[in-house]
Amino acid sequence: MSAPAAMLAGLGGRSVVLVGLMGAGKSSIGRRLAQRLGLPFQDADSEIEAAAGMSIPEIFSRLGEPAFRDGERRVIARLLQGPPVVLATGGGAYVDPATRAAVRERGVAVWLKADLGTLLRRVSSRNDRPLLKQGEPAEVMARLAAERNPIYAEADIAIESSDEPPEVTTGRVAAALDGWRPGSRTDLLRVNLAQRSYDIVVGGGLLARAGAYAAPLLRQKRVVVIADARVADLHLPALQAGLAAADIATHIVPVRPGEASKDFTTLARVVDEVLDAGVERRSCLVALGGGVIGDLAGFAAAITLRGIEFMQVPTTLLAQVDSSVGGKTGINTRHGKNLVGSFHQPRLVLADTDTLATLPPRELRAGYAEVVKYGLLGDARFFDWCEANAARVLAGQADAQREAIRVSCAMKAAIVAEDERESADKRALLNLGHTFGHALEAETGYGDALLHGEAVAVGMGLAFALSARLGHGSGQDTERTRAHLARHGLPARRSDLPRRFSAEALLGHMRHDKKVTDGRLTFVLARGIGQAFVSREVGAEAVRELLREEGCEA
Amino acid sequence: MSAPAAMLAGLGGRSVVLVGLMGAGKSSIGRRLAQRLGLPFQDADSEIEAAAGMSIPEIFSRLGEPAFRDGERRVIARLLQGPPVVLATGGGAYVDPATRAAVRERGVAVWLKADLGTLLRRVSSRNDRPLLKQGEPAEVMARLAAERNPIYAEADIAIESSDEPPEVTTGRVAAALDGWRPGSRTDLLRVNLAQRSYDIVVGGGLLARAGAYAAPLLRQKRVVVIADARVADLHLPALQAGLAAADIATHIVPVRPGEASKDFTTLARVVDEVLDAGVERRSCLVALGGGVIGDLAGFAAAITLRGIEFMQVPTTLLAQVDSSVGGKTGINTRHGKNLVGSFHQPRLVLADTDTLATLPPRELRAGYAEVVKYGLLGDARFFDWCEANAARVLAGQADAQREAIRVSCAMKAAIVAEDERESADKRALLNLGHTFGHALEAETGYGDALLHGEAVAVGMGLAFALSARLGHGSGQDTERTRAHLARHGLPARRSDLPRRFSAEALLGHMRHDKKVTDGRLTFVLARGIGQAFVSREVGAEAVRELLREEGCEA
Repeated sequence: MSAPAAMLAGLGGRSVVLVGLMGAGKSSIGRRLAQRLGLPFQDADSEIEAAAGMSIPEIFSRLGEPAFRDGERRVIARLLQGPPVVLATGGGAYVDPATRAAVRERGVAVWLKADLGTLLRRVSSRNDRPLLKQGEPAEVMARLAAERNPIYAEADIAIESSDEPPEVTTGRVAAALDGWRPGSRTDLLRVNLAQRSYDIVVGGGLLARAGAYAAPLLRQKRVVVIADARVADLHLPALQAGLAAADIATHIVPVRPGEASKDFTTLARVVDEVLDAGVERRSCLVALGGGVIGDLAGFAAAITLRGIEFMQVPTTLLAQVDSSVGGKTGINTRHGKNLVGSFHQPRLVLADTDTLATLPPRELRAGYAEVVKYGLLGDARFFDWCEANAARVLAGQADAQREAIRVSCAMKAAIVAEDERESADKRALLNLGHTFGHALEAETGYGDALLHGEAVAVGMGLAFALSARLGHGSGQDTERTRAHLARHGLPARRSDLPRRFSAEALLGHMRHDKKVTDGRLTFVLARGIGQAFVSREVGAEAVRELLREEGCEA
Repeated sequence: MSAPAAMLAGLGGRSVVLVGLMGAGKSSIGRRLAQRLGLPFQDADSEIEAAAGMSIPEIFSRLGEPAFRDGERRVIARLLQGPPVVLATGGGAYVDPATRAAVRERGVAVWLKADLGTLLRRVSSRNDRPLLKQGEPAEVMARLAAERNPIYAEADIAIESSDEPPEVTTGRVAAALDGWRPGSRTDLLRVNLAQRSYDIVVGGGLLARAGAYAAPLLRQKRVVVIADARVADLHLPALQAGLAAADIATHIVPVRPGEASKDFTTLARVVDEVLDAGVERRSCLVALGGGVIGDLAGFAAAITLRGIEFMQVPTTLLAQVDSSVGGKTGINTRHGKNLVGSFHQPRLVLADTDTLATLPPRELRAGYAEVVKYGLLGDARFFDWCEANAARVLAGQADAQREAIRVSCAMKAAIVAEDERESADKRALLNLGHTFGHALEAETGYGDALLHGEAVAVGMGLAFALSARLGHGSGQDTERTRAHLARHGLPARRSDLPRRFSAEALLGHMRHDKKVTDGRLTFVLARGIGQAFVSREVGAEAVRELLREEGCEA
């Protein structure tokens, strides 16, 4: 079958229904998509005008909004009854429950998401949009977004598409449709880095659809998969089948699970086996596993033939919300974690929430610490959401996990797009809890005794306590942070850890942190929940006192 | 002493005399430099006008050029007799032998070089330049450049300065003056890569002046020197003294000489010792040695803390004209050379021709093969120059060596600026002779049995023979190439090598070349001397036949 024919077969006779706010590009993308799929394009608004014999402003002014909505509902229902089309809908159409039900039954809903600035820019030149006549455009748009986004979120596929050429968005929609299966829900987030931009796909069942997402990006019909040996037992068959569905062959390089694999010896072995597999500059590696595999495989890709492409298929919550996004790759040395590595961006990240079902509960909790981090560092409302939904995330509820991953990745993507190489202080905010955390891990030996997420959880508790001690944040925020972590089984204080620590030893590790400048320690502090900032003004004495207060030895 | 005071002391009461074609920026840079050094600025042309009481066009039209030149000579002599100034001279002034003698005695001549396009753009808006009235500006400018550049080349310091802000050029001139010592001759070439642009400094006595060149670039008053242990015995004291003169401390990491050090084990050890030395993101490494050290230290810099800065101090002819410029770093694996590495540009390259005096003659010859390569791949006139001057280069004559390095580096810099990551076929031209050469080295085991430059020499002979066989070049060019190489003690045919080779084994290595695309071999062929091109159309059978004809076994 040709590619469009295969894609249409996958849709099972359904229409593609584009939803989203005005200015999201529904008509522009819809027209291009229709051409690509070989389907007719329909614009619901034009059909309504044709049926009514008047323009939309006239319908609104003569008959009122209820009559318009009624007509809209009937026109869309009629179009969906026919043979498959690509259908662009008005911004309010999908809000109607009957229309949503009709789309669910006969269509695949694709939500085109764009930020408010992009939307306003695009609609500023149009004046036939009745709802925007009710007030200031920016206010009205913001209100509409707040009301409707939670409803658009019910779409089968959500695609972020600010500031990129419509051809690019169309290609991404096509890949997402190709990967779509009845019942699946997928978010496509974008890391905007000019020619190195890439998608983070979040959803269930992605391994089985990996070929659909990967095929448009690959320059060869084969990949070398660097796989965590334990994860491979659970998920490699699904990934291989998903890739094989797009005729993509796989060569497997297994890696022993655990942080110990992030060393020069394993790196050299992996690179050797990748070269054994006969890779060329056009070849692509795939990292299947948690953060260890992603960091190791990404670094191997960065240095093999001076840089080949790679894809991340993270299978832990920690890797899905943090390490697989943003291009930091590397290994550890006896001096500390990630002290050797490269900035090397992946071509694609597939965060399949189904893989989290096989994760040991302790690892899920540890990964959740990095989710909370995003709320704590820059989004107080997301922290509220975490307080309300953590239990559901940790209990394995797919919708809560998807939302946690989506928000975390969106925030990380925005930060990385702004400061890819941590040359400003923006990206450094992601290190909230990490100066303490890395020191605790270095002291503990990077083993199962203290998982990275657990170290970060204690580290975030200490970072808030240090902020309060230095007069930045309040003790209340420290308590709220620690209470939330503790409630969900994460350590939040030094005393939650079973072993002893020496304050001097921890400070010694902090002095070897990558962020050190002219010997000065760097900390991420917080003025409150959601208000983190970078400080190079923290004296060693303040840290020493805090650590002793927390029960560290002199 | 403050920095300008120290610099003035180094000049020993001399004036700084800016020379070069009109449009090179002599007044613009001169004014800024004078301010920086705290010296008065003088413009020779203005002084002549003041002395004559008429404008320069009037002097030319009423009194004629001889009278102008006479006045110019006297005015410059008078200005140089006084206390030190920064003096911008007219384009023809330095051509006068008496003026050159006066400058030699009382000044430091700085030649500002810019390409013809830049010069024409800058002068296009001026109409008070008498000589340019004699014909088409582009023609006149080209003729002036051809006549005068060999004379400007007598300046103490030559600085390429096309297309960069005058502040940047001024800073580079200041650094070069700071590094100047009586009797020294220095070329500053520029690799133009936006924020990652850097200078290649070519000249004698540079180790002793390393601190002057390095200090403006460093963010810490210390460097870690990765040094070839044998080279360190000869040249490290001079480098350390040169850096110490600018208060730059050094920490030394010695590396065993030889290609065997370009492996994962040595890389891991070097990175470990660099981290032991307490480097931070703002730290800088220095590579002291030949290509092995440059590649290894550059790669260590690329991956330590995900990338820190480094400087190249190449001490072999091969490294000075090739590997130290352009940012290719890496190590070898059992699959072949440089299959693991990074693109990571240095901040500065110091090519000190004095270090070549300690190079074994065989290594000097091997390095010379890469010099000839530039003529063969893209500059037939430079190949003519090589035929006329190779003996002087190999006999250790400083001016010939400086010219060979200058032309080679200028050509490499231009190619790298155009195609930094070898994503087009431009940079691949630098691999003339390398597909064969790498295969010969792989078969021989990268040891003293066959040096890289020797392998490239045979490879260039084979590349020309292959081109002729495929109908591209002439047999005459092949013979001329081989005769030149053989005359200067380089192997140019398979039969010049003492051991046997199997054609199949060599082809096997070529199939693992980094340049292979979808299994197709890549060769740099030539339509003639100076006319290389990249081909992916060469069949294995043609290569096999050539290798057999050259005496390889089946």
